[in-house]
Amino acid sequence: MEIKEKSLEELKELSQEIRERIIDVVSRKGGHFSSTLGAVELTLGMHYVFDAYSDPFIFDVSHQCYPHKLLTERWEEFETVRQFGGLSGFTKPNESPADYFVAGHSSTSISLAVGAAKSIKLKKENRVPIVMIGDGSMTAGMVYEALNELGDLKLPVVIILNDNEMSIAKPIGAISKYLSKLLAGKYYQGFKTKVDKFIRNNMPEGTTYIAKRMEEAMKLITPGILFEEMGLDYIGPIDGHDIEEVIETLQIAKAMQKPVIVHAHTIKGKGYKIAEGQHEEWHGVGPFNIEDGEFVKKVAPKSATAVFADALIALASKYENIVGVTAAMPSGTGINKLMDKFPERFWDVAIAEQHAITSMAAMAKEGFKPYITIYSTFLQRGFDQIIHDVCLMNLPVVFAMDRAGIVGNDGETHQGAFDISYLRFIPNMILFAPRDNKTLELGLEFAYSLQSPCAIRYPRGNFKELNYLPTQFELGKAELLKEGTSNKLFIGYGAGVSRAIETEALHAEDISILDLRFVKPIDKETLIELSKEYDDWYVFSDSQKQGGVSSAILEVLNDENIHNVQVTSFEYEDHFIEHGDTKQVEESLGLLPQQLILRIK
Amino acid sequence: MEIKEKSLEELKELSQEIRERIIDVVSRKGGHFSSTLGAVELTLGMHYVFDAYSDPFIFDVSHQCYPHKLLTERWEEFETVRQFGGLSGFTKPNESPADYFVAGHSSTSISLAVGAAKSIKLKKENRVPIVMIGDGSMTAGMVYEALNELGDLKLPVVIILNDNEMSIAKPIGAISKYLSKLLAGKYYQGFKTKVDKFIRNNMPEGTTYIAKRMEEAMKLITPGILFEEMGLDYIGPIDGHDIEEVIETLQIAKAMQKPVIVHAHTIKGKGYKIAEGQHEEWHGVGPFNIEDGEFVKKVAPKSATAVFADALIALASKYENIVGVTAAMPSGTGINKLMDKFPERFWDVAIAEQHAITSMAAMAKEGFKPYITIYSTFLQRGFDQIIHDVCLMNLPVVFAMDRAGIVGNDGETHQGAFDISYLRFIPNMILFAPRDNKTLELGLEFAYSLQSPCAIRYPRGNFKELNYLPTQFELGKAELLKEGTSNKLFIGYGAGVSRAIETEALHAEDISILDLRFVKPIDKETLIELSKEYDDWYVFSDSQKQGGVSSAILEVLNDENIHNVQVTSFEYEDHFIEHGDTKQVEESLGLLPQQLILRIK
Repeated sequence: MEIKEKSLEELKELSQEIRERIIDVVSRKGGHFSSTLGAVELTLGMHYVFDAYSDPFIFDVSHQCYPHKLLTERWEEFETVRQFGGLSGFTKPNESPADYFVAGHSSTSISLAVGAAKSIKLKKENRVPIVMIGDGSMTAGMVYEALNELGDLKLPVVIILNDNEMSIAKPIGAISKYLSKLLAGKYYQGFKTKVDKFIRNNMPEGTTYIAKRMEEAMKLITPGILFEEMGLDYIGPIDGHDIEEVIETLQIAKAMQKPVIVHAHTIKGKGYKIAEGQHEEWHGVGPFNIEDGEFVKKVAPKSATAVFADALIALASKYENIVGVTAAMPSGTGINKLMDKFPERFWDVAIAEQHAITSMAAMAKEGFKPYITIYSTFLQRGFDQIIHDVCLMNLPVVFAMDRAGIVGNDGETHQGAFDISYLRFIPNMILFAPRDNKTLELGLEFAYSLQSPCAIRYPRGNFKELNYLPTQFELGKAELLKEGTSNKLFIGYGAGVSRAIETEALHAEDISILDLRFVKPIDKETLIELSKEYDDWYVFSDSQKQGGVSSAILEVLNDENIHNVQVTSFEYEDHFIEHGDTKQVEESLGLLPQQLILRIK
Repeated sequence: MEIKEKSLEELKELSQEIRERIIDVVSRKGGHFSSTLGAVELTLGMHYVFDAYSDPFIFDVSHQCYPHKLLTERWEEFETVRQFGGLSGFTKPNESPADYFVAGHSSTSISLAVGAAKSIKLKKENRVPIVMIGDGSMTAGMVYEALNELGDLKLPVVIILNDNEMSIAKPIGAISKYLSKLLAGKYYQGFKTKVDKFIRNNMPEGTTYIAKRMEEAMKLITPGILFEEMGLDYIGPIDGHDIEEVIETLQIAKAMQKPVIVHAHTIKGKGYKIAEGQHEEWHGVGPFNIEDGEFVKKVAPKSATAVFADALIALASKYENIVGVTAAMPSGTGINKLMDKFPERFWDVAIAEQHAITSMAAMAKEGFKPYITIYSTFLQRGFDQIIHDVCLMNLPVVFAMDRAGIVGNDGETHQGAFDISYLRFIPNMILFAPRDNKTLELGLEFAYSLQSPCAIRYPRGNFKELNYLPTQFELGKAELLKEGTSNKLFIGYGAGVSRAIETEALHAEDISILDLRFVKPIDKETLIELSKEYDDWYVFSDSQKQGGVSSAILEVLNDENIHNVQVTSFEYEDHFIEHGDTKQVEESLGLLPQQLILRIK
């Protein structure tokens, strides 16, 4: 039965079924959980009032899209969500025509809606873009850029602001406080009426200007003043779990034929008591026991993130000028521990990578040593700020890039593939990487000593334990870990070092292994020396090939007139990398050690 | 005499002298003009109330910083502004301790101020960051990200919003309209008082909530409601040319010890009648005659920008699905002509590169063919959007990158050096470049035919005229322009082709010349063939070496097991490139043809 033909009772039943399906699958497979549970009624409302196969359905970040997937012919297939070869955890047009855009990074939705609305106008169609965006995504600058144009053009777009109290539990920034105020403002309507009347009775000498101001003054009393001032209509707040209210409001908003913000209050984890209102632990989860909410325990070695956090705590205790920042990823980057311990020196600036970087550039100029902790993929969002505000000024900012390499189930929007390629050509930048936990600790201390910007990368999950003693970093110095008898040379960078070591162990020959340590400045002298002994080089790095580590090595060889060396890259080829269990993904790329020995000539 | 000891009369005289000095020097040397003239009194006020050698003076974009330079021991040296080896046209800490930060890209100032304010608090100092930002810079997302944190932390920062009616003449976006409204709102104070009184007399049953709302309601009536709602105090609008009002207001703002926006109304070009209120023609100028404002005419060949604009007009007339966008550079990119001719299909979205790109991605998805016209250096600001919203979706967006290569007097913040390096590794991206006007036209038509994202680059100023017939682009195909007898091969890319041709003409040998045309996909077959005949290759491209054109060539040679070829790069080395006349800058880099023949072994 078409969703539009369902009665209110049937819709409520459906919402129950959707929740059960999500809880069932995610409890077994893991996935995004609390935000998607909170969006069930809003999504039903979208499908009831709009048409996903015609109206652009735009889910910001799209980790709340599971109900949408279930409603668009993916009920059974949902079993495979985030698994290798299965459904993506995000919207993905390749998967379904109901998925308008890929989204994994936040705050792109309103820009997409503006583009869609411009297109619809030019094509003289009647479709209406409908956006769902969480309050957390409202902090990024892109949203404001898009609202600025939308409020000016006044094209029909409905924006559901899904306010799940993320910001009430974790108030970050003025916008959060503003939204909380709006939620409270529901009870303010009576006052508005009074003011309204007063204005009508006190109209001054009838200049047009004053008349216009009066009209605005009436608007001033609506709770959504910030949005109204930007030229958008505002409705709300409504109860985002009351399906009837949701549908009625969306119908009104759609009929308005202009940009409207529908401010809906929802509860994260709604429908699964244990997760309700718990925003952080239940945002993205692994398998858990439905009855008691206990997570299935995996015995996992200490993650690189945890090693980073502990090491930085030690360092920050020692050096008082260390400060740090995260852009809305406090627990993901481990910096929450530092915010707890040093609340005056570590900040979560919300989803605002550009501001995070540039504000820390100023702190570096003031004599502080900022550690910007960020996922490799999200650092892309502050690219110009790295060049223009950090590197041009040659400021000693540390970019601590977590989730470098393949990130697993989040997939193509989140892979940390590009950081070496997009940082290597920036003047003044220093790029180095630890090979294991202990060198990560040493690397953070080494970073402290640098007078220039640097970027250090480490993987999602854990480094492998290595049988090589950790050694101090020395600027631009590689480290030969093992000298072999073969004419082959394995060169590893970062987590690639352990891959090189594992591959070497499987190989029949006795092969030398170099930990490159620095892609920039690269160790020319050592490479020149090694070229005299070895002419068959293999590069192991969890990063893009083009412009990456092997490319840097080729530049050196050519600059030094060295032509006897053949370099084989075991980096990522020129494709976006799919989601799935990391090992399966690596297997699909032929990057497992047992595959690599077969690829070695 | 210290500025702080001057009387009002003396300050007025000083403002006159500053204007005369600016008009004199810029009329002879060229430079930023109207915005800097409009900022004289505001800058004097800053120096009167704050201390540039202690308080962080932060000029957004900093093209309005000439009065500041004149006031900080650079009166004589100002003669050299923007000349090679002379003063920069922007603030630059290397030049003076009074210059807090480099700035050439817009909208970084408030983030810098937040970082400075955090530092000052930690250091327990009494300095106060003072920002000057134009209304045009207020549209970029970064500003909003920074205001969001500032409005929350409430650290002392004074922000002068220098509203020079840029937005009244050219209203772009809702924020512009909002600011215009504020300017009008000056006459609205009486009304406020009435409402204020009404609220006091109508206080309902005394709940705390209502009491709090009332306090806010009073704020609601201030004109700067948008800022107040974000947690910032607002004063204004004031007359930014009334030095007394400026000083008084800044003194109040400084004393408030919290974030305050001082909204000042100024006139661009103030003090030079011919330029007053003329925002675009007089923003950045070449030499002109002071008496009549006539620009010194240079006979210049048609610029690449003009060729681009004319060609795109022809194309857009032919193909109705072509749309396009600029981020606040309509005349700089030539897209103003398209906005005039096709006002429904071409937009200026204000300084909002992220939004520009992502909104056009949606239009591509809807079947349109977007041409994003943008300076190479500013495209850096939408880097993640290129990856996440365009390339991941493999959408046929065209990035038309103007100002690729050395841009001349703007200097290090504006050089178009990095685009090849930061785009080459992105999957699905196609990179190609025209060598002259005619191939630029052909290139734009070729871009239209592509089903994937592509980026095309062309220089500031004009292409050289070449004696080679233009040929159609064919995906991934290079073109051998000339076969010589030498074992050398010159490889040019984009404007590098003419440099290769000129160099060849000066060289004693008869050298083959390849126009590479595509860096991605690169023409492997041709390169393989040429490696059989030539083993001494030289790469000419106006772009960064690391990860750039020669790097792409080295990757091919290595992948194909070709080891007889030595590649010499005539690209940019690993340094930021200074400002100055383009030829002088190129000479300093050893990139003039007569220098290159000496560098060729």
